[in-house]
Amino acid sequence: MKEKDCVRVFAPATSANFICGYDILGLALEDPGDEITLRKVDSPGIKITKITGDLGLLPLDPEKNTVSASIKMVLDHLRIKNIGLEIELFKKMPIGSGLGSSAASTIAGLFAINQLLGAPLTKQELLPFALKGEELACGHGHADNVAPSLLGGITLIHSYSPLHVINLPVPKKLCCSIIFPHVEVPTRAARKILKTQTELKNAVSQWGNIAGLVTGLFTEDYNLISSSLKDYIIEPTRSFLIPEFEEMRNIAIKSGALGFGISGSGPSVVAFTQGIEKAKEITKMLKQHLGKKSIESNGYSSAINTQGAVEL
Amino acid sequence: MKEKDCVRVFAPATSANFICGYDILGLALEDPGDEITLRKVDSPGIKITKITGDLGLLPLDPEKNTVSASIKMVLDHLRIKNIGLEIELFKKMPIGSGLGSSAASTIAGLFAINQLLGAPLTKQELLPFALKGEELACGHGHADNVAPSLLGGITLIHSYSPLHVINLPVPKKLCCSIIFPHVEVPTRAARKILKTQTELKNAVSQWGNIAGLVTGLFTEDYNLISSSLKDYIIEPTRSFLIPEFEEMRNIAIKSGALGFGISGSGPSVVAFTQGIEKAKEITKMLKQHLGKKSIESNGYSSAINTQGAVEL
Repeated sequence: MKEKDCVRVFAPATSANFICGYDILGLALEDPGDEITLRKVDSPGIKITKITGDLGLLPLDPEKNTVSASIKMVLDHLRIKNIGLEIELFKKMPIGSGLGSSAASTIAGLFAINQLLGAPLTKQELLPFALKGEELACGHGHADNVAPSLLGGITLIHSYSPLHVINLPVPKKLCCSIIFPHVEVPTRAARKILKTQTELKNAVSQWGNIAGLVTGLFTEDYNLISSSLKDYIIEPTRSFLIPEFEEMRNIAIKSGALGFGISGSGPSVVAFTQGIEKAKEITKMLKQHLGKKSIESNGYSSAINTQGAVEL
Repeated sequence: MKEKDCVRVFAPATSANFICGYDILGLALEDPGDEITLRKVDSPGIKITKITGDLGLLPLDPEKNTVSASIKMVLDHLRIKNIGLEIELFKKMPIGSGLGSSAASTIAGLFAINQLLGAPLTKQELLPFALKGEELACGHGHADNVAPSLLGGITLIHSYSPLHVINLPVPKKLCCSIIFPHVEVPTRAARKILKTQTELKNAVSQWGNIAGLVTGLFTEDYNLISSSLKDYIIEPTRSFLIPEFEEMRNIAIKSGALGFGISGSGPSVVAFTQGIEKAKEITKMLKQHLGKKSIESNGYSSAINTQGAVEL
């Protein structure tokens, strides 16, 4: 691929750790996500010229901004100096939502600079930089959001040393409804609440469900996917941090969701469905329910994005 | 299917709980296994006329023998009274070997009577009886040996209530080498030694490996199968009960095994290989090693049996 003067890329939001997939599974959404435009300019240095969207905690200082930090990693690796770059960032999802907000920014940055330079690295080769980016942004180099945002689909983090990420098959009709209630559950606090020990019998049930879920994805068996989407380990500890969790579960399951649980480290929740119409219906009902309890929320209904980061 | 006067059936030995699949995975071997001949006779009652093979702990009293107990369960269920049956049992594997010895007897009995009666029940319908049989024989109604012995292949026990067993795909070249060292590790004692709690981080590694293993079975990816065959939970606690465990692992892995670990609750160990020749080579080397340490053993090299219980 040839070098370019300007690229515009999209990196999708993600749901990691979903339901029974704590620390190993993640998936990419069609929408929302981060868009950036990256442009070569004559004067050396990285400049953020524009940020639109959720600016909440976004540092405008290029030294601290996730996107420019990611771009610098790739430039350092390729020993490229004195390049001039301008970034426009369109942040299309809320920060701290459990939708992999920082991961999408990291991936957008990495993917954009790689495309601008003519794709010297493969997507798989960009992954280690993404982990570093997550470590800078969240204090923990997890791959559960960056991997699906970069690669798309449903990703299995098989191991960290060596880093080994596998794309699982995506059943055609699998969709999800994601609700982000406007209450704060920072990732670090949600991690702290987890016990370091777990009951062996619960762990066995969990890995039975993970094996069932992976089998269901391969065989496109929605009943098996549904009966596997249960979390015996994380949900019992974390779900009480999320308002109306049990009520939302009841609504989703009664309305025909395949499964319901925590997305990321919360407070977002995810319901899986067969078909986008069902996802939209559930998103609407869950938002309405939270509304009645005076809890504002964002709601998303999406198929699984199988492309990951793309040039627009 | 018509009723018959006499059937001869084979139920294969099994490796359950193998390596990372504690309490959820099991597989059937081509060889060894149990064979029985079941014959209708005029005088009512169940009679065991002959037992050959490993008689160690086998009760000849039909009230206590696993095979006749299984047959009685099916007869009771179908409300068949006053039938006369003679059983000949050819026990072709050692008891207490971690190869599902009691499970093979249970399955042989269940499958034989069902075939004799013209197959009124499906294999899946026989499974609950098999669980009851295991409970009578071992004090615990586990499905990890009976399910693969009955159904064949690699089975995933997805849940117990309701009982849900799934056949996973079997890669064509997947074989195993199983060694049964002649030292006693009774199942109940081996279960007792397990801690009821486990480290969350180890549980996460384990379910990552199980997801990887299932993926590897579906995609016939021997590298992925190999890197997934690791046990972070059970092996560290149980392996010291098995003599020469680490030495056997080193020999197997150095010789090209895909993975090595405990079979059942031990003392049997299993090494997976790509191809039967490699399995035979490893079986020979492991037996030789134990021989040098004055430990007698049985060794088996087998492809995965995809048929389960069959009429001969």
